[in-house]
Amino acid sequence: MPVIRGVLEAALYADDLDAARRFYSGVLGLEEIAAQEGRHVFFRAGAAVLLIFRPEASRRPPEPDALPVPPHGAEGAGHACLSVAEKDLASLAEHLRAHGIEIESDFHWPHGPRSIYVRDPAGNSVEFASPSLWGLSE
Amino acid sequence: MPVIRGVLEAALYADDLDAARRFYSGVLGLEEIAAQEGRHVFFRAGAAVLLIFRPEASRRPPEPDALPVPPHGAEGAGHACLSVAEKDLASLAEHLRAHGIEIESDFHWPHGPRSIYVRDPAGNSVEFASPSLWGLSE
Repeated sequence: MPVIRGVLEAALYADDLDAARRFYSGVLGLEEIAAQEGRHVFFRAGAAVLLIFRPEASRRPPEPDALPVPPHGAEGAGHACLSVAEKDLASLAEHLRAHGIEIESDFHWPHGPRSIYVRDPAGNSVEFASPSLWGLSE
Repeated sequence: MPVIRGVLEAALYADDLDAARRFYSGVLGLEEIAAQEGRHVFFRAGAAVLLIFRPEASRRPPEPDALPVPPHGAEGAGHACLSVAEKDLASLAEHLRAHGIEIESDFHWPHGPRSIYVRDPAGNSVEFASPSLWGLSE
């Protein structure tokens, strides 16, 4: 069986890439590591990468002279969970509130770990939780 | 700024969860760690979790007596990249072919790292690449 070590990239979709920038970089502090005007903006999220695509553009097949990157593109609210140490979740919630980001849900799962959920500007459900949610080490 | 350490969960959508199981567990060997009949099936992918949701179900708001997990659900091809060590990509490609999985794209980026792309049974674009693709350590 192939040895799969983790999730290297999660993708979400947004029509407004500048609004995505204001949220992921401006509010969450993720470093922007790549962008293509009107098509995508990518952010480093610790040991992985969060990709934000404009589906209208990412759905187009690659140009004949470009690398054969397969098209994709979804509509509707997606979901991703960003990894935050359990001890940092309280200050994260405070940080989000200080930036006027509404917290949609904030609760502890029956086995203890906490999850905090907000919406990004495109309406995607963005969760913050620690690896302990899944019995993984931080 | 909040300390975001990685992507803990990536989500893709599929109408047929059993077909998703056959691919992610049967072909890729990911361990199924949670499931709710007709709504979702979750797989451990190394240090992270890959979530597969049926959008028709995950889009429904939570029941009043359930945990307030926010609804989401997208239509159309999504994308995720699973982390595989650069040295394991050749045997992964062989493994996929041996299981009759068509490789849609397989190329090296200008800076060297290789990406392999397939479609999951729902048509999502699933990539395999090493963290070196993003200058991250393996």
